[in-house]
Amino acid sequence: MREDKLLNLSEIEEYLNTFARDRDWEQFHTPKNLVMALTGEAGELAEIFQWLNLEESRRVMEDPKAAARTREELADILQYVIRLASVLGIDLREALWAKLRINEQRYPVELARGSARKYTELVSD
Amino acid sequence: MREDKLLNLSEIEEYLNTFARDRDWEQFHTPKNLVMALTGEAGELAEIFQWLNLEESRRVMEDPKAAARTREELADILQYVIRLASVLGIDLREALWAKLRINEQRYPVELARGSARKYTELVSD
Amino acid sequence: MREDKLLNLSEIEEYLNTFARDRDWEQFHTPKNLVMALTGEAGELAEIFQWLNLEESRRVMEDPKAAARTREELADILQYVIRLASVLGIDLREALWAKLRINEQRYPVELARGSARKYTELVSD
Amino acid sequence: MREDKLLNLSEIEEYLNTFARDRDWEQFHTPKNLVMALTGEAGELAEIFQWLNLEESRRVMEDPKAAARTREELADILQYVIRLASVLGIDLREALWAKLRINEQRYPVELARGSARKYTELVSD
Repeated sequence: MREDKLLNLSEIEEYLNTFARDRDWEQFHTPKNLVMALTGEAGELAEIFQWLNLEESRRVMEDPKAAARTREELADILQYVIRLASVLGIDLREALWAKLRINEQRYPVELARGSARKYTELVSD
Repeated sequence: MREDKLLNLSEIEEYLNTFARDRDWEQFHTPKNLVMALTGEAGELAEIFQWLNLEESRRVMEDPKAAARTREELADILQYVIRLASVLGIDLREALWAKLRINEQRYPVELARGSARKYTELVSD
Repeated sequence: MREDKLLNLSEIEEYLNTFARDRDWEQFHTPKNLVMALTGEAGELAEIFQWLNLEESRRVMEDPKAAARTREELADILQYVIRLASVLGIDLREALWAKLRINEQRYPVELARGSARKYTELVSD
Repeated sequence: MREDKLLNLSEIEEYLNTFARDRDWEQFHTPKNLVMALTGEAGELAEIFQWLNLEESRRVMEDPKAAARTREELADILQYVIRLASVLGIDLREALWAKLRINEQRYPVELARGSARKYTELVSD
């Protein structure tokens, strides 16, 4: 029987909250600042992949250095997503599933199947 | 007794995987493309906050329209973080906690406390 | 009499083209890759400003280290904008003025004057 | 004889300055806000290219809708680069050429020629 991977959001929120409070960093963690920090981390993630072609990007974890950087950047982004939700009082689990339901409506299977063109038009707007 | 908010990563990964397969979108979900999509969503999140001052950014959830957009963008980013980790075979929980431990080393409490200047120098590099 | 600051796009395009060719880097400079590199540089610029409040951000050039980084990141972004336009055959000057005219239509003076709220709603969509 | 394409930075700066003043928007154009707006536009540019493969990205201008969006997003980014430089008192031309000289030192031709691996390592850090 498979054991589900569970991310304990309450535990992480609390950890991040204590981490910030201990360092007197709560003053910096306004939503605006955290959003900016998140875009900064997204930019760092982009830098790892920017010159790779699509096939190379699939094999990025074979390179230990790139793999470590990718893990760290993804973790940083996730960390800021959780911190932001915590500061804004957003229930991430609820927000995520609500958005997934919206996407189901927005991209019905029958319309979505097929060409990249259609996909591009559907999903990039 | 508090009930922890748990995010079932296995369930979401599976959902996203099925969602992509049903639409024949797996071909588009290379790591490079997903990273780009993630930076796109981060950009949309930034747009919500770009003209707000710090105090206004704290009250962003009081405006129903901005609140809904913020929830959706955070959900989109989280979704791409989970999808990327899934496609790359990264254990997000492990990666997150590993990074949090690194941050503890990197920003010791005694050094971090205090001025914004110090914070800025410590955390922006 | 004021002397206008002119940016010689032809000269820079040619310089960047030679720079890439000399290093055998043209193969990496696909539009998609260059866009990703641009978002990476935008992320680095964001990192300089992420923890500053609005007032501090106005005085960022007073700090020699932050000033140097800001100059470099702006230059990197500009460089990728020019390179991208060059690779895509876009006339930047024409594209810029066309967009400025669109903005004049989109944000008429009489509508735009006034509250942040209105500005936020007008400009963030 | 070729005629150089010249971008009149002084003219554009003045235009943008008047544009903001007429709308009472100078209050919103702090460096931090402008940086955030720039990352928002970079995100929109990324959205155009996110699902295209490298070859498709080379042909993006063949699609009139994608071409128009690309022109507009590049123009928006350029506009914010110029506005930011203006607000911060940065001489863009000087900053650009200074950075190009740094890049010449950082990526000497003899080292740079050759494999993607080397390029990736050189340029993504």
